Amino acid sequence: MKKPLLLAAVAALALPLSALAQTAPDVAALRDAALKDEVAWDVVEGLTTEVGQRLAATEAEARARDWGVKKLTALGFQNVHIETYRMPVWVRGAETAEVVGPSAQKLTIAALGNSGSTGPKGVEAEIVYFPTMADLAAAPAERVKGKIAFVSHSMTATQDGSHYGAFGAARRAGPNVAATKGAVAILIRSIGTDYHRNPHTGVTNWAKGVTPIAAAALSLPDAEQLERLLKRGPVRLRLLVTPEFKGEAESGNVIGDVPGSDPAAGIVLVGGHLDSWDLGTGAIDDAAGIAITTAAAKAVMAAGQPRRTIRVVWFGAEEVGGFGGAAYAKAHTGERHVFASESDSGADRVWKFETNLPVGAAPIADRLAIALAPLGIARGRGEAHGGTDVGPILQTGVAGIDLSQSALRYFDYHHTPDDTLDKIDPAQLRQNVAAWTTLLTIVANAPEDIAGVPPHGE
Amino acid sequence: MKKPLLLAAVAALALPLSALAQTAPDVAALRDAALKDEVAWDVVEGLTTEVGQRLAATEAEARARDWGVKKLTALGFQNVHIETYRMPVWVRGAETAEVVGPSAQKLTIAALGNSGSTGPKGVEAEIVYFPTMADLAAAPAERVKGKIAFVSHSMTATQDGSHYGAFGAARRAGPNVAATKGAVAILIRSIGTDYHRNPHTGVTNWAKGVTPIAAAALSLPDAEQLERLLKRGPVRLRLLVTPEFKGEAESGNVIGDVPGSDPAAGIVLVGGHLDSWDLGTGAIDDAAGIAITTAAAKAVMAAGQPRRTIRVVWFGAEEVGGFGGAAYAKAHTGERHVFASESDSGADRVWKFETNLPVGAAPIADRLAIALAPLGIARGRGEAHGGTDVGPILQTGVAGIDLSQSALRYFDYHHTPDDTLDKIDPAQLRQNVAAWTTLLTIVANAPEDIAGVPPHGE
Repeated sequence: MKKPLLLAAVAALALPLSALAQTAPDVAALRDAALKDEVAWDVVEGLTTEVGQRLAATEAEARARDWGVKKLTALGFQNVHIETYRMPVWVRGAETAEVVGPSAQKLTIAALGNSGSTGPKGVEAEIVYFPTMADLAAAPAERVKGKIAFVSHSMTATQDGSHYGAFGAARRAGPNVAATKGAVAILIRSIGTDYHRNPHTGVTNWAKGVTPIAAAALSLPDAEQLERLLKRGPVRLRLLVTPEFKGEAESGNVIGDVPGSDPAAGIVLVGGHLDSWDLGTGAIDDAAGIAITTAAAKAVMAAGQPRRTIRVVWFGAEEVGGFGGAAYAKAHTGERHVFASESDSGADRVWKFETNLPVGAAPIADRLAIALAPLGIARGRGEAHGGTDVGPILQTGVAGIDLSQSALRYFDYHHTPDDTLDKIDPAQLRQNVAAWTTLLTIVANAPEDIAGVPPHGE
Repeated sequence: MKKPLLLAAVAALALPLSALAQTAPDVAALRDAALKDEVAWDVVEGLTTEVGQRLAATEAEARARDWGVKKLTALGFQNVHIETYRMPVWVRGAETAEVVGPSAQKLTIAALGNSGSTGPKGVEAEIVYFPTMADLAAAPAERVKGKIAFVSHSMTATQDGSHYGAFGAARRAGPNVAATKGAVAILIRSIGTDYHRNPHTGVTNWAKGVTPIAAAALSLPDAEQLERLLKRGPVRLRLLVTPEFKGEAESGNVIGDVPGSDPAAGIVLVGGHLDSWDLGTGAIDDAAGIAITTAAAKAVMAAGQPRRTIRVVWFGAEEVGGFGGAAYAKAHTGERHVFASESDSGADRVWKFETNLPVGAAPIADRLAIALAPLGIARGRGEAHGGTDVGPILQTGVAGIDLSQSALRYFDYHHTPDDTLDKIDPAQLRQNVAAWTTLLTIVANAPEDIAGVPPHGE
């Protein structure tokens, strides 16, 4: 039988207050000091200015790794090093789209990651329109064959960002479906929520044996323009999209530790991803995530040695297929990770947290709820599931907590040229650092054993 | 001696109430009906969708003229025709900018109208930074020679749009000054107020004998990125800007009349401009202006023949130097124009009006004040000055009234790829139509003679 809610609430309030008092560092003091943090801004400003875009496995991402080693070393992290791996490289080429005929006009597009090429001469074909991904999936091949498929959707801005998962299939899977049905190319309405002429790129995936076709996103104004033109009659488009697959090259993760006093207590893994798409400077995606987690780990470091080792990883090659997270998990199977969490939804304020902790470590969540409440953060109803980078570690049965950032603005800028430093609000960035400092202080110093959980993850 | 303010206010209230009652059509009824107008949206949606961008003296602007003749004819305007003129043509080419050296990265630029070319091989040079146009003007030539000048400014969003005039000199005059001092090229911070990677183009002017250099605008995020890089040390840039001057070609004005019952009472001239910059679809600049004035003239036409002829002009080639307005004034010197006004600041709500009327026609302004008040429009403290298109007519001593639209959002989109249909709020567009319907009803039917005023205009 369930406990009555009131009793449960009283129990939750009673327990952690005493437990909080036992915790060595003063969580509240560290949390509040972090609201004046300058480290995160320094990292995000420096990386986005001095390196700029950092497409996976390119020279720019390598420069970013060197930048990271210098920065983590200067901040006092230990065992700072790069771990490399090889991966396929895709780079953007020319990309233009032009309506032909009596309403001749250019449309703004951006190739999706892993898009195929039209070849240097481009293609010209009629548009076949699908209001949703389901419509494309249901269409007979003869409707699609030889045409340029155009897939729309109805994504809106949501605080939990859930529409990205729900409506993102047009980008992730649409091109493969269109190619299978014989389309010469595919355009999608950007998986985004803003009305600027900056299309949202992002990775698409091809099934084995499917030859990639040209696949690009239209900005929302362009997608709606095309819909208006299609209401007036058939539309032919001339499309030039010439990205290239460049074979394999080196990418890597940048790693730094705050060594703990009790190696047997296991590693607390946090981070974000260092690579970015090539269009913006990757400020909210994801210089912010590495800046926030690094600043929080630094704050805990400065307060005295934690019980558990805190490891910060600046993952490489997340955008293009999660190569950094996979490489890390493979390379570190011998170590005892007890906790993993990542920051990869921008720099707007954290508003909820969710956990996936073993029963014995449940008091950690109760202490966290009390310590995060002054930051305007409440416990959500779901379970933590991590993200692309810590997913492979979580899937081995490691515990985790998600600090969820407001995504209301995130998909206005995500994967566009507009992902630049000015989109970061320093006050909200600091709230993130305070939340992560709170989390790391509590988790890294928790007296409880953090045992494994049933394998879980994205 | 001035009248005490209270007495003046009472007099203003007392007079026009009776005068309003004398006006033939029911101004209030026409005004309120216009709040449900669908003509303006039909024009702005149709033109921006079916034609798109309409750069002056190009094939697209010619298509737009044909579109305009059909639309004005279908709406019932009389004497619908095109009046052509010839003018120099400038067209955009390639445009890329790249920081070279350890922080190698691309910056987003757009060439200014009338920009010179770097040639197909581009130029590479050091940046010399000027925080304001005054700093560039004051700089000795040896600081500028052989370099790429970069001029910033501190424009903010203002309701009256006045910062465009105040801070726009960097674009209008900066390139000429930089060229005179021997710069190889010039970049300016976009004359705009938004943080999207869509630079603001716009015309620049060269003094006689000055050879045009490459002149381009950086988006605000790019301008601030460059400023951050310059704080760290010297910056070299590789610049490719290849627009072309294409000689002379044809442009034109599209004209339609609502004939008045009293030809001797003179012509009431209203309109906006048909051409647009090449980057967006020219929705707020200025499909909205022609749509608003056309819809208002149509509403007056539908209510019965006005006393004065209302002439709607869709001016060509405003953006690139006001060729349409100048050509109209030159071609129509023989006609008695008694009033001229244009709509060319977007589609957001009108919030004030200002007049330049002869003393005998002053009651028109008083009646207008009463009739516009329910739309949230009040009389401003300044005088009407018109704009680029009706300026040449106003300068001959013709009376005018400005209906001022809120410009708070206008310079977020102005002259960028983001000037698209979605930026227009249909409710605010209708408020504009209601304001213009009110103005035209009162002015075209005014029993007073509208005599000339001292020559005036922009």
